[in-house]
Amino acid sequence: MQTGHGGRMSEIFQHQIKVLFQHCDPAGIVFYPRYFEMVNQTVEEWHDAGLGHSFAQMHMESGYGVPTVSIGAEFTAPSKMGDVLTWSLSVLRLGRTSAHLRITARCGGDLRMTATPVLVYVHMESGRPVPWSDPLRAEMKRYLSGDALPG
Amino acid sequence: MQTGHGGRMSEIFQHQIKVLFQHCDPAGIVFYPRYFEMVNQTVEEWHDAGLGHSFAQMHMESGYGVPTVSIGAEFTAPSKMGDVLTWSLSVLRLGRTSAHLRITARCGGDLRMTATPVLVYVHMESGRPVPWSDPLRAEMKRYLSGDALPG
Amino acid sequence: MQTGHGGRMSEIFQHQIKVLFQHCDPAGIVFYPRYFEMVNQTVEEWHDAGLGHSFAQMHMESGYGVPTVSIGAEFTAPSKMGDVLTWSLSVLRLGRTSAHLRITARCGGDLRMTATPVLVYVHMESGRPVPWSDPLRAEMKRYLSGDALPG
Amino acid sequence: MQTGHGGRMSEIFQHQIKVLFQHCDPAGIVFYPRYFEMVNQTVEEWHDAGLGHSFAQMHMESGYGVPTVSIGAEFTAPSKMGDVLTWSLSVLRLGRTSAHLRITARCGGDLRMTATPVLVYVHMESGRPVPWSDPLRAEMKRYLSGDALPG
Repeated sequence: MQTGHGGRMSEIFQHQIKVLFQHCDPAGIVFYPRYFEMVNQTVEEWHDAGLGHSFAQMHMESGYGVPTVSIGAEFTAPSKMGDVLTWSLSVLRLGRTSAHLRITARCGGDLRMTATPVLVYVHMESGRPVPWSDPLRAEMKRYLSGDALPG
Repeated sequence: MQTGHGGRMSEIFQHQIKVLFQHCDPAGIVFYPRYFEMVNQTVEEWHDAGLGHSFAQMHMESGYGVPTVSIGAEFTAPSKMGDVLTWSLSVLRLGRTSAHLRITARCGGDLRMTATPVLVYVHMESGRPVPWSDPLRAEMKRYLSGDALPG
Repeated sequence: MQTGHGGRMSEIFQHQIKVLFQHCDPAGIVFYPRYFEMVNQTVEEWHDAGLGHSFAQMHMESGYGVPTVSIGAEFTAPSKMGDVLTWSLSVLRLGRTSAHLRITARCGGDLRMTATPVLVYVHMESGRPVPWSDPLRAEMKRYLSGDALPG
Repeated sequence: MQTGHGGRMSEIFQHQIKVLFQHCDPAGIVFYPRYFEMVNQTVEEWHDAGLGHSFAQMHMESGYGVPTVSIGAEFTAPSKMGDVLTWSLSVLRLGRTSAHLRITARCGGDLRMTATPVLVYVHMESGRPVPWSDPLRAEMKRYLSGDALPG
């Protein structure tokens, strides 16, 4: 999905997750920590399919990771078993070693939740933040939102 | 996938699940309770896509469920982040109110785990086993394995 | 734990959770959606042990619930398998149908995470917010923080 | 808890886990993959508190692990939110590199589930089974069941 503004094309990464029995609580709706697993899955699929940068290889072979240092979330409406959620991801701000994301889940036109995680690129052995590599940074830039925060 | 034997066609239900970061333990391999979540997801997808009998509708509207009363599992080889697992399901034995399943996970040709759950069809309010409905039973029969146990 | 201010005693609810193998990711540290399970467990224990208002009975018998409508979280330092986390809960603001909480996890003196969930009291059948009952509200007030937000 | 037979005292390791909101499914009862998380927690607490052999240190510092290679389980009766489960662990058979366990969960006198996992002691880097160390083996022997399988 692409939106143009000022000559630049801003992409939004999207994928779908069906709400399963295992995501639901005794009230029959998604238990909110399961939403955060879906947020993490969205970041993972974005790396694999959107950025062309395997999440598994980054962690298991290259020794880098993208831990979440903070996150905000709003749960606008409940999701029920069987709902197919469309997850959308864009980059609000791309720092030297960090990325502010906006991730939403919708079912049809209905907004279910919005999350705003901040990821930091770290060398896992030391736990220290490191600058995004140039190729990864270039890929991420394609997802910079039209209403991006100043970097 | 179909295998013929003695004039009857036996189907195997298949779907795929990618091993995600969230499935893996500090050793970097699938934590075995996460395999059981995938086994449950396989049963759920089988209902939705294989049997044409919505798992969500069965639970939330019709008031029936298929709790697992026993399960055996063997973990043949570990699975790592990024592995795409092909899950296969067939019915070993179809009782009046129960079904014995065999579910396997493979990555390429490599067997990773085998599970043999026994499900019982229950009316959820009472918790009592009830006979499979005729249409559901007819659908399930298509997945009866060639080496099925005597019913 | 109690802190005095202006003649009123403000209580902080505390309990402990050990970081288990199942909470940890391939980097050997707590996977952040598991922290939100611990946040939910802290709210649950607060109801059971702090407020004397059984969380199970509220949901399963009385038909009320306290869904989280928004949450913010900061992950200050990673937690490792075997760490014993002390969780502390206080009420920042108590509305007519809602409660703003501050929940922290510490290991020894080391701050690991802070969460600020907003709960709403709802009648589960209708999904509508309802005013806190007087006894529940009176119990919750004991945990109002000294630096509480104006109600 | 101890039971004598033929002059030898056989110990059973026990601890308790309360059934939380997060363990329960849309039917309001424990979702069975959560039971396997509790089984793993029981093995972990047994190492820490029963065997005096820190599960965290074994994995993170010594580089050994105890993966489950097979497991059987029977779910005898459902457990509900708020139930306090008493988990009991004994050793059915202690091999050179493996241990067959029996783990049960009861609420009051009511049996809820029985699991029979087989663990193997492995060196995590190579993934190869290794013989139990003599001190660990000596500790495990204290939990050998009176109706132990021949070693």
